[in-house]
Amino acid sequence: MSEKIPLTEYLFKRLHAIGLRAVHGVPGDYNLTLLDHITPSGLEWIGNCNELNAGYAADGYARIKGIGALVTTFGVGELSAINAIAGSYAEMAPVVHIVGTPIRELQQRGVKLHHSFCSGSQRDYQLFAEMYEKVTVAQADLIDVEHAPGEIDRVIRECVLMSRPVYIRLPMDLVDVLVPASLLATPLDLSPGVNDVSLQNGVCDMILNRIQVAKQPMILVDGGTSRYGLLKQTNALVKLTGFPTTTTPFGKGLLDETLSNFHGLYATVGSEDYSSYVEGCDLIINVGPVHSNVNTYYFATVPDKAVSISIERDSIQIGERAWKISTPALLDQVIATLEREGVPPMSSYPALQDVQKTLASLPIVSPSEKFAQSIFWRRMSRFLRSGDIVLTETGTPSMGGRDFVLPKDTTIINSAIWLSIGFMLPAAQGAALAQRHLSGSENRVAGGRTILFQGDGSFQMTAQELSTIIRQKLDVIIFLINNNGYTIERLIHGPEEHYNDVASWRYLEAASFFGGDDDDEMSYPVLKARVNTWGELDGILEDPEFHSGRGLRMVEVMMDMQDCNDTLRLLLDIYKAKKG
Amino acid sequence: MSEKIPLTEYLFKRLHAIGLRAVHGVPGDYNLTLLDHITPSGLEWIGNCNELNAGYAADGYARIKGIGALVTTFGVGELSAINAIAGSYAEMAPVVHIVGTPIRELQQRGVKLHHSFCSGSQRDYQLFAEMYEKVTVAQADLIDVEHAPGEIDRVIRECVLMSRPVYIRLPMDLVDVLVPASLLATPLDLSPGVNDVSLQNGVCDMILNRIQVAKQPMILVDGGTSRYGLLKQTNALVKLTGFPTTTTPFGKGLLDETLSNFHGLYATVGSEDYSSYVEGCDLIINVGPVHSNVNTYYFATVPDKAVSISIERDSIQIGERAWKISTPALLDQVIATLEREGVPPMSSYPALQDVQKTLASLPIVSPSEKFAQSIFWRRMSRFLRSGDIVLTETGTPSMGGRDFVLPKDTTIINSAIWLSIGFMLPAAQGAALAQRHLSGSENRVAGGRTILFQGDGSFQMTAQELSTIIRQKLDVIIFLINNNGYTIERLIHGPEEHYNDVASWRYLEAASFFGGDDDDEMSYPVLKARVNTWGELDGILEDPEFHSGRGLRMVEVMMDMQDCNDTLRLLLDIYKAKKG
Repeated sequence: MSEKIPLTEYLFKRLHAIGLRAVHGVPGDYNLTLLDHITPSGLEWIGNCNELNAGYAADGYARIKGIGALVTTFGVGELSAINAIAGSYAEMAPVVHIVGTPIRELQQRGVKLHHSFCSGSQRDYQLFAEMYEKVTVAQADLIDVEHAPGEIDRVIRECVLMSRPVYIRLPMDLVDVLVPASLLATPLDLSPGVNDVSLQNGVCDMILNRIQVAKQPMILVDGGTSRYGLLKQTNALVKLTGFPTTTTPFGKGLLDETLSNFHGLYATVGSEDYSSYVEGCDLIINVGPVHSNVNTYYFATVPDKAVSISIERDSIQIGERAWKISTPALLDQVIATLEREGVPPMSSYPALQDVQKTLASLPIVSPSEKFAQSIFWRRMSRFLRSGDIVLTETGTPSMGGRDFVLPKDTTIINSAIWLSIGFMLPAAQGAALAQRHLSGSENRVAGGRTILFQGDGSFQMTAQELSTIIRQKLDVIIFLINNNGYTIERLIHGPEEHYNDVASWRYLEAASFFGGDDDDEMSYPVLKARVNTWGELDGILEDPEFHSGRGLRMVEVMMDMQDCNDTLRLLLDIYKAKKG
Repeated sequence: MSEKIPLTEYLFKRLHAIGLRAVHGVPGDYNLTLLDHITPSGLEWIGNCNELNAGYAADGYARIKGIGALVTTFGVGELSAINAIAGSYAEMAPVVHIVGTPIRELQQRGVKLHHSFCSGSQRDYQLFAEMYEKVTVAQADLIDVEHAPGEIDRVIRECVLMSRPVYIRLPMDLVDVLVPASLLATPLDLSPGVNDVSLQNGVCDMILNRIQVAKQPMILVDGGTSRYGLLKQTNALVKLTGFPTTTTPFGKGLLDETLSNFHGLYATVGSEDYSSYVEGCDLIINVGPVHSNVNTYYFATVPDKAVSISIERDSIQIGERAWKISTPALLDQVIATLEREGVPPMSSYPALQDVQKTLASLPIVSPSEKFAQSIFWRRMSRFLRSGDIVLTETGTPSMGGRDFVLPKDTTIINSAIWLSIGFMLPAAQGAALAQRHLSGSENRVAGGRTILFQGDGSFQMTAQELSTIIRQKLDVIIFLINNNGYTIERLIHGPEEHYNDVASWRYLEAASFFGGDDDDEMSYPVLKARVNTWGELDGILEDPEFHSGRGLRMVEVMMDMQDCNDTLRLLLDIYKAKKG
């Protein structure tokens, strides 16, 4: 007789097998029994303060660990989280959203249960799932025990392969139903589709030919690169060809910025030296393009199609021609051929932006001087080190983060499409947890930290998730930019308008309010400071307890209400000219 | 030449004319210019910390003032608020949700803008509106200036008449477009439909006849009563007939509980004396029924159709027969006839629950004794007074609130359908603001307070809105029930499970963290205390600064982790038997 396991355990063990170690979420009476299966499946339960935050945290976790999950309750819970899931969809984070739903028979009879509209119709139990169809790449309603394991496999596979959220409804009466344990013996097939050999050979040859004949080439790396599984191949391509390489804001952090052929962010301030080079390019290899307005300086940096090779997940466009083809395998073949043939890398081309020089030539600041964002972000680059995960919240911090010059193996989490403020604090909780779960793994540099740059307005959106950081004893450094309101919106419209103000909080009391204890240094240290000047900031940054300690380290950085870096000012000039 | 006003001013002035005085929301770059029109239209802007909270606050405001509004930004903002709007839909709160959207031409061209999915299709700009169709009773996309004023009128009318939320999209490029000011001269027609005279006469006669011949009648008042505009008529009916009258949880607070024929909550604990009376009833007038599971003790209190007159907004059912008819006018006629004919009120019937006696016979507690929820809520009734708005958050507080014996003219805000925890703190902000806006109006009793009973788990969901209470200098009393987690869920499943725990916050530090100042007594006093025993609680309750002062008064009430009142225990027994 074959062994059986509960369906919910099957679900969680499938997720464990592909790397998940924590489930975020909020309990509710339709999901309580479901939660009983998390710990036995080898996963941690992370109870967040609310569902939106849980969704954000699961997204942050997924961006680091490759898979994230949250559990909410029917109706109220899932709707609270929908903006986070929409963000995961827009920015391609693989998150599994599991919703505990009422027992099947009550749904079918349209019984007037709480968390529904009580219309008396079974439609009540489909409305929210219909919303979720718009923000997820696959959905499953596990109403049929026989097909449930297959349905689970199908949506998890879509989640990973498409790097986008999926949605699973699990009715209370199927939580504990038994399925064959033997199903777990067959691993999930997560391999991308295999290409037709002659097609792949043909396209590979075309790419190689374009690389070989290029007189003025460029590689432009965008956010899709990591999400389409093209990171390894792209970094190899950059090294092997020696082509001048640049990144978009969303692609920042994906490349080794210490390479001599890395030339920073394309089209940012001070990169006028680019335009003539790019205009003369006969080849632009554009990996994982994401052409949102804020990622492309209002479409100014979208490369000319005629000279481009544009590489998506399942397609490639070379000039005007496009092919449906799985690109990871294709690029593997391109790299293998280049390595075998030992092409000499491109050695000379006109001087382009040299980010290391920018860093070396930063103006000297006086210790008593107040901060200026024009310098702040580039200067903060010196604080960063290999292995760090750096989160830059939408607003002046994300624009500031475009100025960073990054050490090798630094990960940036920013937003270039969805831009939902409040995302980054819960995302930092998820990322720090994922970093802990990855520590010691071969792909991680030891000693990396989770560092969040956040504005005051965005902090207020989801502030309570600091308590989850504290409760889970996560090691996080927070630079809270206090510039007295929504600065980026002041710069767009209404610089002095009251609607761009926020309440005056005593931010440094946060850790204590949320349960952190200053005195309890053994268990979870909390270090906090307010800085008004470069000197005060440097004092903190040099403190070993701060830069290499544990626990929560929170610095309130007092900035001028209307200050921003030149990168943002440029974007706003274009934005205002384009009106939206 | 006729005078012109901006379209947005037209919208806000229409809302002002029907009683709105404040717009809640969060700024975003697609709504900034829209916000410029709020103050000039005579409205206050209340910037909340996030959009979900803004939706909750607008709902709380609407439940007191009869209309509420919030402004969010396209995509991220509107999706964050959708759970609040779904709650307004489920529980019938008239809220106008205005979303600032990108300029029309960019939407039509499917330009890849931030806060969209950047698919390149104009579908991107319809997805969220399609979600909102499911949670609002009317929608308008103001893309056509000629029809925009009419569209605004249509949706506002639906909002008020249906007492449910509506959704308005306002593209950036139409915010300032001019429309004729003269359109404002014609007031919005908010009168319910007029009934056919002979139909109304006929149904009225049937009701009067049933009232006159009834031997064992009862009036059962539910939450729809206020939402369908039947409050005045229902209170008159209760007084004129003298029929024994009872309420559901959702209907609580709608009736004068000091009337001798008021007999508390139907089917709550200790009301066993009811069943034989109700079973023998030959007439049950059921006003505004809301038959959700939690409002009806799992459908146990749904009255027998054969003896019932069930009164909805636009229909009435008498026994097995139903008519489409606008019921406010119908009941007006019933009342007028009863008054004219001078029917003597029913004088004698078997003894039913006497709530005033319950209150008078509360057990004496020792000052050093810890709290027991079996007594706490009834005992807290003594603290309440006429004019108070009392909010009881879903969980032990809402179940506790079922035990209240209310002074005349007390308003209860609770949830009986949607039950989204976290709702009540922002709702208290909205309600307190509405109370301020109503002070001095003839329908309000002077000296009324806004009093919130909230659990610790639900407080954590939306805690930051305390800062809006402080920032707006609202007068609010908060009883924070600290029972160390999600007590109601512990009682359902997993009493000791870690997923029912919440982080340990230092709740009394909240006011300081969120910017309130203990010392600044002239401007906005803050009074706070933790109480463990009846004696400590009484000490606070008797302090005039507490019970009749101003500002924020917050009491942390320490309760046992698994304690609840008998009312909740009864509901849970039924719930577990029904499994969902």
